[in-house]
Amino acid sequence: MAAAVGRGAAAGRALLPWGWRRAAQARGGSGGGGAQRGLAGTRGGGGSVGGEGPEGEVDRARRAAETPAPTVFSRILDGSLPAKILYEDDQCVAFRDAAPQAPVHFLVIPRRPIPRISRAAESDAQLLGHLLVVATKVARAEGLSEGYRVVVNDGKDGAQSVYHLHFHVLGGRQMRWPPG
Amino acid sequence: MAAAVGRGAAAGRALLPWGWRRAAQARGGSGGGGAQRGLAGTRGGGGSVGGEGPEGEVDRARRAAETPAPTVFSRILDGSLPAKILYEDDQCVAFRDAAPQAPVHFLVIPRRPIPRISRAAESDAQLLGHLLVVATKVARAEGLSEGYRVVVNDGKDGAQSVYHLHFHVLGGRQMRWPPG
Repeated sequence: MAAAVGRGAAAGRALLPWGWRRAAQARGGSGGGGAQRGLAGTRGGGGSVGGEGPEGEVDRARRAAETPAPTVFSRILDGSLPAKILYEDDQCVAFRDAAPQAPVHFLVIPRRPIPRISRAAESDAQLLGHLLVVATKVARAEGLSEGYRVVVNDGKDGAQSVYHLHFHVLGGRQMRWPPG
Repeated sequence: MAAAVGRGAAAGRALLPWGWRRAAQARGGSGGGGAQRGLAGTRGGGGSVGGEGPEGEVDRARRAAETPAPTVFSRILDGSLPAKILYEDDQCVAFRDAAPQAPVHFLVIPRRPIPRISRAAESDAQLLGHLLVVATKVARAEGLSEGYRVVVNDGKDGAQSVYHLHFHVLGGRQMRWPPG
């Protein structure tokens, strides 16, 4: 059954061209330098070390709250916020992180807004697995033949700053240990 | 379909008692201090910073190779290597990392030896999702109500040191950014 679901989701849909595609271009929004404006959850800490500065990921995670309000990722999904989209299908979208922590750093998110991995149910297993399979496909298309790291942050201790489930994929450099 | 698979895998099987259970105890092996002997892939770098010392995760990853030979995780699965097992079902096993990088640090591995996430196929989606759902259940049982991080390392750049797919789950402290 799982195989059928997986094949249905992937083989039945063509991948987008693998180059960057701005949602703004397809949808008439403003592209260019402001393409990632508003991506607060993935905007890096600039000079902050370990993402713990005033604008760091960890600080944002401390302030973030799980609310029913739409997140910046909802706005990417509905096209009102541009993003550098790498892949999309009926279940998910992959796009570049606005504050990359590695030469290649992209996110994979489900269209359905599961707020965090700890809220996932057994019935979400196929979707979660599909997100991972998509992560591997995009990683391959991005040329990460030397490997990469997949990361899911949950809650404050995990440094989750946007409460819409997202898988980080980082590669193009040697990842260190421990993972944060 | 996915829901049915998920329910079948979880609701149909009782979780083990959540305390540590040594496979050695159940299977007559030697427990005690040697319980995690041989867990090279998850043995920490001791004093090494960032896992890059002589015995660090990154160094081991550089030496590791993807071979058809059984890994230390195969030996945990067949009972010949003891581990502090937290959960098991017909698809996967969760056990404590022998070199924890956080107050709570455990691994979830599939019984079927997929060598690395980049080798996963569409037909593995349900299994991959199940591993994540199990990760959330064990995290809950471990009391990680403040959140946690899930990490999958692929290949050399990802610092993968055991070529049997495994999901790291780390919690009980503030995780930093970037994730390694």
